[in-house]
Amino acid sequence: MDKTNPGNFFEDFRLGYELRHATPRTVTQGDIALYGGLYGGRFALASSAEFAAACGVSPQPVDDLLVFHLVFGKSVPDVSVNAVANLGYAEGRFGMPVHSGDTLTATSKVIGLKENANRQTGIVYVRTLGFNQQGETVLEFVRWVMVRKRDPNSEAPEPTVPETAPFVAPDKLILPMGLNFSHYDPVLAGSPHFWDDYRPGEKIDHIDGMTIEEAEHMLATRLYQNTAKVHFNQHAEAGGRFGRRLVYGGHIISLARSLSFNGLGNAVKIAAINGGRHVAPCFAGDTIYAWSRVEEAWEIADRPDIGALRIKTFAAKDYPCGDFPGDEEAHPHLVLEFDYTVLMPRRF
Amino acid sequence: MDKTNPGNFFEDFRLGYELRHATPRTVTQGDIALYGGLYGGRFALASSAEFAAACGVSPQPVDDLLVFHLVFGKSVPDVSVNAVANLGYAEGRFGMPVHSGDTLTATSKVIGLKENANRQTGIVYVRTLGFNQQGETVLEFVRWVMVRKRDPNSEAPEPTVPETAPFVAPDKLILPMGLNFSHYDPVLAGSPHFWDDYRPGEKIDHIDGMTIEEAEHMLATRLYQNTAKVHFNQHAEAGGRFGRRLVYGGHIISLARSLSFNGLGNAVKIAAINGGRHVAPCFAGDTIYAWSRVEEAWEIADRPDIGALRIKTFAAKDYPCGDFPGDEEAHPHLVLEFDYTVLMPRRF
Amino acid sequence: MDKTNPGNFFEDFRLGYELRHATPRTVTQGDIALYGGLYGGRFALASSAEFAAACGVSPQPVDDLLVFHLVFGKSVPDVSVNAVANLGYAEGRFGMPVHSGDTLTATSKVIGLKENANRQTGIVYVRTLGFNQQGETVLEFVRWVMVRKRDPNSEAPEPTVPETAPFVAPDKLILPMGLNFSHYDPVLAGSPHFWDDYRPGEKIDHIDGMTIEEAEHMLATRLYQNTAKVHFNQHAEAGGRFGRRLVYGGHIISLARSLSFNGLGNAVKIAAINGGRHVAPCFAGDTIYAWSRVEEAWEIADRPDIGALRIKTFAAKDYPCGDFPGDEEAHPHLVLEFDYTVLMPRRF
Repeated sequence: MDKTNPGNFFEDFRLGYELRHATPRTVTQGDIALYGGLYGGRFALASSAEFAAACGVSPQPVDDLLVFHLVFGKSVPDVSVNAVANLGYAEGRFGMPVHSGDTLTATSKVIGLKENANRQTGIVYVRTLGFNQQGETVLEFVRWVMVRKRDPNSEAPEPTVPETAPFVAPDKLILPMGLNFSHYDPVLAGSPHFWDDYRPGEKIDHIDGMTIEEAEHMLATRLYQNTAKVHFNQHAEAGGRFGRRLVYGGHIISLARSLSFNGLGNAVKIAAINGGRHVAPCFAGDTIYAWSRVEEAWEIADRPDIGALRIKTFAAKDYPCGDFPGDEEAHPHLVLEFDYTVLMPRRF
Repeated sequence: MDKTNPGNFFEDFRLGYELRHATPRTVTQGDIALYGGLYGGRFALASSAEFAAACGVSPQPVDDLLVFHLVFGKSVPDVSVNAVANLGYAEGRFGMPVHSGDTLTATSKVIGLKENANRQTGIVYVRTLGFNQQGETVLEFVRWVMVRKRDPNSEAPEPTVPETAPFVAPDKLILPMGLNFSHYDPVLAGSPHFWDDYRPGEKIDHIDGMTIEEAEHMLATRLYQNTAKVHFNQHAEAGGRFGRRLVYGGHIISLARSLSFNGLGNAVKIAAINGGRHVAPCFAGDTIYAWSRVEEAWEIADRPDIGALRIKTFAAKDYPCGDFPGDEEAHPHLVLEFDYTVLMPRRF
Repeated sequence: MDKTNPGNFFEDFRLGYELRHATPRTVTQGDIALYGGLYGGRFALASSAEFAAACGVSPQPVDDLLVFHLVFGKSVPDVSVNAVANLGYAEGRFGMPVHSGDTLTATSKVIGLKENANRQTGIVYVRTLGFNQQGETVLEFVRWVMVRKRDPNSEAPEPTVPETAPFVAPDKLILPMGLNFSHYDPVLAGSPHFWDDYRPGEKIDHIDGMTIEEAEHMLATRLYQNTAKVHFNQHAEAGGRFGRRLVYGGHIISLARSLSFNGLGNAVKIAAINGGRHVAPCFAGDTIYAWSRVEEAWEIADRPDIGALRIKTFAAKDYPCGDFPGDEEAHPHLVLEFDYTVLMPRRF
């Protein structure tokens, strides 16, 4: 019996399948530090246990995107190890905060399947759930990926494309228990701009750029136990489509998020991932810049201290974002559109 | 008085010498996370505190090879800082599990000495022991290294070559206190293959490859406080034998171990290191592939839940292992042969 | 209202201004491990909790230079994000030891201002203080940086250059509570040389060299949440003064400190930073070597177990330090002069 696992091909998925992913992963202070070294994040809630406690959340919650990457990583060996491309995200919502010492597991349910016209590949839609050791949901999201078929001639299932919401409705956002911005200190947090100061349509250039190194994106992707082959093997990729190792798309999301501190410094908590698209691949040597547009500003019922902003952050490579690339039309340097909802303190 | 330490040369060793190594090292969650980022390991016992607890071991033990590298690293300044080559290992056995917070120390005893015919170098055999802060042995192993002589004309000691066992006998393996695989969950662990499914002579290609970067192998080697000069100094190595920094051999062992998850996913615990040989040097830019052969399958007395497999894992560079390079004869791409014994759950 | 923060220019500083820096940062075991992987330090007090406890300090204090970098990093967005050069340090003194779990904050007071003759830039002198979550001072230091003016024609303040002490007087050094070297174990610590063995004027070549990689200095600088642009953005720096990303000067200090173990292995605690000068910029690919000169040897009142050494460590790039470059005059390979005071065990 062959012991190595080739992963699932398009034919292996059936609508309604529930995949229970390996392997559980305990998150620690070590992961938080390495994540910090990889992106240099400064959002105060994830940077300081004391600041988090002053905002009513103690122990300190782990950075939301680190949780996203870990749960995503769990799903790779079952869902996307034979994927050609990670196409999109929807209905991403953070639940119970994750703390150092928690152990994460994940499952995915197949909610859509659609063969492509060329019959070489098909699109697989899954709803992935991440859990802590108490079985509480820490994150859920839908993603769809283009997966190779084992055999182009094999029969395809009836096409099913799930409908997904354009964004997570503000009344569906989950606020961490105890979160309270009544005594929020904007000087310590590093930004004078509160929720009240942002307007839909407003654009913010995050100015700085960060160059990617091979060692960094591989360290990150392995930290997430993401096993997608294209990120790690130069010997194989030298003969592949790009001749180079591809950077995990989530690495770009985290870089853009970190750059967005300059302009969105009080967006200390991501509550939802409404959508996302990896517009173009990234490689070591690329310098990532980012800008954001405020899509919507929502009050939170009965919470005079907290507001929500729906943000779209765009990342471009080797192109400063002062002219907001990708806003009006496709832009040759654009690599990412990421649509998410953040919680911010309100003026009081 | 000269304050810098040139390290020991072949003449400085005497049979029976006991070397007490500096410097004690406290192992933490941080080391575990960085080790994870460097290799991307997914073996469930080291990945999840909850999984470990469900297997009866709590607190969670630190990855066995991280312990190996740390103890090995302690021995470098005294044993091999002037070594030309690390020649082999034998009689490696893990004892008390190491936990986050433990402090490791190490000693080595000189058990063999043999000058080489060219009189420039000699082989030093040591038995190295690693201890925790209670003085309990966490690891022991024999290794032998080729060490430069200070002066080719200096007198050589009587040659003494210790006899070492070809492998650690199964009745000598130390099971971690409490380890119990009766409720082992193979889906969570990520592999359906139990001890019962493996047969001596079986070969497993681990398929994937991982490319080495300078920043990665140096981060790893410094994490282990391994001070061997050849890994860090491009200015000096540019004029050396290879013109490049050499990758610490243990880095290759950990890469191969991590790749071996695909096919040996339930080999969650290394109990012994029977032998090992760094067949050829590795450098940044090399892509490491691996395959394994099952050498022996042993029952463990009175343990219907646990079996042991003696495994030989081969690593090759820039060469996928589908044809099992190095099995029949020397192979130009082979870089490592590593012979070790793992504990695996049995079907119940 | 523009949400992005361009940072302060020379005109924005006023004598006496107090800057309260963002963002608080909790230090953990993870930071300590990553710091270890970046520099490979072996000083026993920072390497081993057990060794620290045997020296009377428990819980184990965090490496002094990691504390320095974190506090320094806090000050960058307010003080030096528009700096051309980091010119010097003085009157650096470590206070309360920092432990894993502590949260650091920082403030800076403007203590000097002097426009340069070209009117393009000016020198800003600040006294920076780092605090733990109890408000206790963990570190203070003076530094001065050359900062761009927003407008060369803008009026300059009256020039004020603060007087700083040439070194921190030995009776001003703060010993960690409980520190006691009466039972110091030099074999475990890795060096036989006590305070008593060093003489002012003595020079020590630290022999080894360490080559810098882009991924490493960026991981380090982000770990410190240091946001200076020149370290991260190859796309912008390609058109800049050097065509390359500049390595954070503090990275060189930590490399030199780590190399200095060979010869100063018992200099387990830095008590003061008397001065420092980044003589030349460093880049990825440079190999750092170091040597040290003992400047002064001081007894500590009523402490027969502890002595202080004022040390000047010099770092050179791509140049082994056997002939002590920079001792007599400027040397083309010299990159750093760092003047600091260490605590060492005395013979008893």
